[in-house]
Amino acid sequence: MITNQLLCPESIVVVGASNNVHKPGGAILKNLINGGYRGELRAVNPKEKEIQGIPAFADVKDIPDTDLAVLAIPAALCPDVVDLLAKEKKTRAFIILSAGFGEETHEGALLEERILETVNQYGASLIGPNCIGLMNTCHHSVFSQPIPNLNSRGVDLISSSGATAVFILESAVTKGLQFNSVWSVGNAKQIGVEDVLQFMDEHFDPERDSHLKLLYIESIKKPDRLLFHASSLIRKGCKIAAIKAGSSESGSRAASSHTGAIASSDSAVEALFRKAGIVRCFSREELTTVGCVFTLPELKGKNFAIITHAGGPGVMLTDALSKGGLNVPKLEGEQVEELKAQLFPGASVGNPIDILATGTPQHLRTCIDYCEEKFENIDAMMAIFGTPGLVTMFEMYDVLHEKMQVCRKPIFPILPSINTAGAEVAAFLAKGHVNFADEVTLGTALSRIVNAPKPAAPEIELFGVDVPRIRRIIDSIPDDGYIEPHYVQALLHAAGISIVDEFVSDKKEEILAFAHRCGFPVVAKVVGPVHKSDVGGVSLNIKGEQYLALEFERMMRIPEARAVMVQPMLKGTELFIGAKYEERFGHVVLCGLGGIFVEVLKDVSSGLAPLSYEEAYSMIHSLRAYKIIQGTRGQKGVNEDKFAEIIVRLSTLLRFATEIKEMDINPLLATDKSVIAVDARIRIEKGEMQ
Amino acid sequence: MITNQLLCPESIVVVGASNNVHKPGGAILKNLINGGYRGELRAVNPKEKEIQGIPAFADVKDIPDTDLAVLAIPAALCPDVVDLLAKEKKTRAFIILSAGFGEETHEGALLEERILETVNQYGASLIGPNCIGLMNTCHHSVFSQPIPNLNSRGVDLISSSGATAVFILESAVTKGLQFNSVWSVGNAKQIGVEDVLQFMDEHFDPERDSHLKLLYIESIKKPDRLLFHASSLIRKGCKIAAIKAGSSESGSRAASSHTGAIASSDSAVEALFRKAGIVRCFSREELTTVGCVFTLPELKGKNFAIITHAGGPGVMLTDALSKGGLNVPKLEGEQVEELKAQLFPGASVGNPIDILATGTPQHLRTCIDYCEEKFENIDAMMAIFGTPGLVTMFEMYDVLHEKMQVCRKPIFPILPSINTAGAEVAAFLAKGHVNFADEVTLGTALSRIVNAPKPAAPEIELFGVDVPRIRRIIDSIPDDGYIEPHYVQALLHAAGISIVDEFVSDKKEEILAFAHRCGFPVVAKVVGPVHKSDVGGVSLNIKGEQYLALEFERMMRIPEARAVMVQPMLKGTELFIGAKYEERFGHVVLCGLGGIFVEVLKDVSSGLAPLSYEEAYSMIHSLRAYKIIQGTRGQKGVNEDKFAEIIVRLSTLLRFATEIKEMDINPLLATDKSVIAVDARIRIEKGEMQ
Repeated sequence: MITNQLLCPESIVVVGASNNVHKPGGAILKNLINGGYRGELRAVNPKEKEIQGIPAFADVKDIPDTDLAVLAIPAALCPDVVDLLAKEKKTRAFIILSAGFGEETHEGALLEERILETVNQYGASLIGPNCIGLMNTCHHSVFSQPIPNLNSRGVDLISSSGATAVFILESAVTKGLQFNSVWSVGNAKQIGVEDVLQFMDEHFDPERDSHLKLLYIESIKKPDRLLFHASSLIRKGCKIAAIKAGSSESGSRAASSHTGAIASSDSAVEALFRKAGIVRCFSREELTTVGCVFTLPELKGKNFAIITHAGGPGVMLTDALSKGGLNVPKLEGEQVEELKAQLFPGASVGNPIDILATGTPQHLRTCIDYCEEKFENIDAMMAIFGTPGLVTMFEMYDVLHEKMQVCRKPIFPILPSINTAGAEVAAFLAKGHVNFADEVTLGTALSRIVNAPKPAAPEIELFGVDVPRIRRIIDSIPDDGYIEPHYVQALLHAAGISIVDEFVSDKKEEILAFAHRCGFPVVAKVVGPVHKSDVGGVSLNIKGEQYLALEFERMMRIPEARAVMVQPMLKGTELFIGAKYEERFGHVVLCGLGGIFVEVLKDVSSGLAPLSYEEAYSMIHSLRAYKIIQGTRGQKGVNEDKFAEIIVRLSTLLRFATEIKEMDINPLLATDKSVIAVDARIRIEKGEMQ
Repeated sequence: MITNQLLCPESIVVVGASNNVHKPGGAILKNLINGGYRGELRAVNPKEKEIQGIPAFADVKDIPDTDLAVLAIPAALCPDVVDLLAKEKKTRAFIILSAGFGEETHEGALLEERILETVNQYGASLIGPNCIGLMNTCHHSVFSQPIPNLNSRGVDLISSSGATAVFILESAVTKGLQFNSVWSVGNAKQIGVEDVLQFMDEHFDPERDSHLKLLYIESIKKPDRLLFHASSLIRKGCKIAAIKAGSSESGSRAASSHTGAIASSDSAVEALFRKAGIVRCFSREELTTVGCVFTLPELKGKNFAIITHAGGPGVMLTDALSKGGLNVPKLEGEQVEELKAQLFPGASVGNPIDILATGTPQHLRTCIDYCEEKFENIDAMMAIFGTPGLVTMFEMYDVLHEKMQVCRKPIFPILPSINTAGAEVAAFLAKGHVNFADEVTLGTALSRIVNAPKPAAPEIELFGVDVPRIRRIIDSIPDDGYIEPHYVQALLHAAGISIVDEFVSDKKEEILAFAHRCGFPVVAKVVGPVHKSDVGGVSLNIKGEQYLALEFERMMRIPEARAVMVQPMLKGTELFIGAKYEERFGHVVLCGLGGIFVEVLKDVSSGLAPLSYEEAYSMIHSLRAYKIIQGTRGQKGVNEDKFAEIIVRLSTLLRFATEIKEMDINPLLATDKSVIAVDARIRIEKGEMQ
């Protein structure tokens, strides 16, 4: 649990405080002092009376009641100190920096257990152990550098790894990104990344709280909670970006060697992030760039104007934006010519708007005004302004500063001359702005943000799905493993998923009557022999009654033949739907076109059950081969609505039948009228029932 | 032409020199002085006797003979000054910084023309106009900042755009990248990027010259020369990376608004870079990161060990390397356990090797030694070492420095704490090293480098191609446009490309005899009616003589029928080959699987004619659907050798028939035995013959 004493303590004690700022106990005290902490600050150290000007106590027994304790003492000493503080000093928040716990040894894990019991008993918070701490606008309880600019307009960073948090900060401060809070949860014995997010969601105050969250996650331990609270926060107007490290096979080995956690399969992570509306990032650089974009006004569209006094970067940025599905629309018309007339001869206004190397701050101001007020096909501006060092850039950057205060449309400052115009960039950042030093990095980050889906609706689509019947069928299945075809048929029927009709009989009249009902052509298969094809027991495309009668007679003469099965012969485009149960995540549903599209081209998209119609359509649309579903080469397409319906219904079925560990419907045959399952397999395991 | 006077002048005059270092004529003089230029330095300025401590002359007439003149005077004055200097002062190199030439007005273009005539007449070099200049280890004739560390182990940068060169330098100096020379060619009136490369190739001295080149190109004006000299340099042991801006449609509009040049189509650029072996980059950040990688010892394989004291970045780097086809192999066995025993308890050695936050410089040294000497499955090391600021990193980075001197395997230093360990990183860079502050950016750059192909063999494959016959056929074609089918057949035959046999006749006996020869089944098509299918004039899969006779009779009764065409009915996988002539580049050849693979999935790969067998195989292998060519789902694959042969032969045909502006063979039908063209179209234009 996260207590007020953790967030905004009236008093803090550093246990193991030191005058040596090269030790964690010294560094954290220094950071607290330099951070201007306004409450009572205390130190505990058996050897000193005063540490860094702060009164020191020889023993924790001697201190007055204290809200938050930061422990920088050997692991073995921590449980007793926590016990004493919680019991006798009303301490309701603990940050344990020390390592040597569960991440190293079994003994360490036991120490952690004892501490957890104590803090839970007293309703106290525990951050760590094995972390760099927590800093927010109230207190800087971290032992690490750098300390970013902390204020309520900044972003919240929540990190599984202390070192990675530190390196993310390194990348962030260079860009001018400001923070509201930085959480390093370490071993996350009580509070993990998901718990911090849950707290932020449940206590969200749109006026006071930061709307911007960056996450670094090594292992998603509680995917349901992450999904629920991340999407809830995003629906409340927050923006969330996250790195989930360990997306490759070797990467997940690396992550697990680091945290001792089993890494989640990456397609489940991908599906969860999409469902929640989280912007997925793959590097610190990308995460902090996305964080900087978050701090700017919301983008209302995909059309950018690039204003610059140097051609090259504008071209590269245009390329990067186009690649990501964003536009740099051509500017033309009367007002554009009017703008051109106000710039130096040779300036170009087609977009990028190039005011030339000699362009003045006034030119920049005019360009921004035209983009803001007159160019209706422009949603945002990119200003690329560096310098070869002849003149200072203060005045130019002042124009940016001035306009960024007042413009409705976002302005992205791209200031590449971080060395030559270092002083000017620093002054610009000091006004609270961010800087995107590399235009292409910005372009890529922007397309990640714009292309991230909105959080999915959390409702389950029940229409047409007979849940009680599904449960009855599942409960009646005796054994684990791949279930009998009639169970498969029954489950799909209960979920309202059409599956091809079939009829088995050893009586010719019955077979003919069925074929008559379902219509020719039909398929006939012998029932009995195992290798049907080898014994001539499969006959496709039987066009009439006479032929079927002949085939029936022939097949019944095949050794071991017991009966004949008849199905209507369907034609259409092959589709595929599959699902896999991922521990903790639930079912990941995959869809695609069948055959080579799945097997060779790996052209599948994934979603996390249960799926809404919107999600199903988004999955279908994101297939590379979507054009085939739409219809191409003069061929009719596939009934997309029916395809989406089956995806949604299947996902609902799975949500109520978590015993299904793996299944696929392959193929479904689809025309512009119908989508019908032709073959399906389902594997269940009841042992691990939730 | 590039003269010695440009590269290493014994004397330099700055015309338009100034005491005001905020003007180009002042800034360039300051840079020359600060750069320690050892020759005679002179200034021309009508108002001063001495400028920045350098003797000043009132008029260029007054100066002694001077090798190199840097002009920072209005455009209109330049032609006369160049004329005088070339004629009277033996000046054989000019750098014209001034703008106001062809990039702005027609009058400016005429001024440029005059200057070009003069310099060509005297065999002098001309850099610019409208550029920031040239700097190398001899002289810093640029007016811009920053000035990187210049020495012969550094990289050569050649840039179309001055401002972009400046911004590339900003990104480079932050990483510690050093330079041998920086060329900004401006309007490139005499010397463009390709010319500089040609000079470097033709005068290449492996002992003295830099082996590393970075290019920024806005428009490839002489693709042949770029290809020839880039691949020649790479074959001599050089490494080249380049940005070609304007890869998107909007991007090329931006590039052309900037330089007034028509941008080349991007697939031609892609094909050219692949053929030359140039590493293609898309941002300044990527280019400078690739440049930094170039400065390290050559990679001998794809297996990396990651050594770190912080888990997270190691995981993200592993993900990035895996994505790019590089490996972080698991380390196991006796020697690995031996290494583990020398680290602190809790350290992991599975790869990433995590020596823990408390790991010492000695631990790092030991890890490097094991990777260098004992782990044979490791080709290179990544060392990720930042700090939360408790202790300084000097000692740790000294170990890196020490080991980077002696190890055969490359060590990539990833030092993320650029603020907190700013002094340590600076000291490390001062020893001549580079720093990769973001591990994922490095991982991505590395995969670009490793996945760049080697330069293609420059020979043309002539075997089986009858060039004189090809020329005779082309010369005999009377009109431009799509050529008659018999010309298509003849050209493919002359190139040794099998095309399906066909026979046209209005005599049943002849038709039957042909079908007999080529074997049933056959295809019959009516000759005469335009829309054959609509009038029932196409019949597939005719299985025997009797049926063919019936079909012939039926077709000949169709109105307008003149004859019937018969082809053997082929089966197989559809393949596609196409080609398009790109102005200046030559023919871009595309290949892929036919049908939806080309039309929907855009799964094609491209190469620049003429193609070697190696290139053809590489094109085939880089198809996403390559597995279908190999054979999949129990189906036999395609005869890859025949496919490659046709690609190569077609490319040779094109090289000798540049009149062909566009062609495609679609489909070719391929089995495991043969690949046969079924339909082909060729469009020629003789007007623009080379």
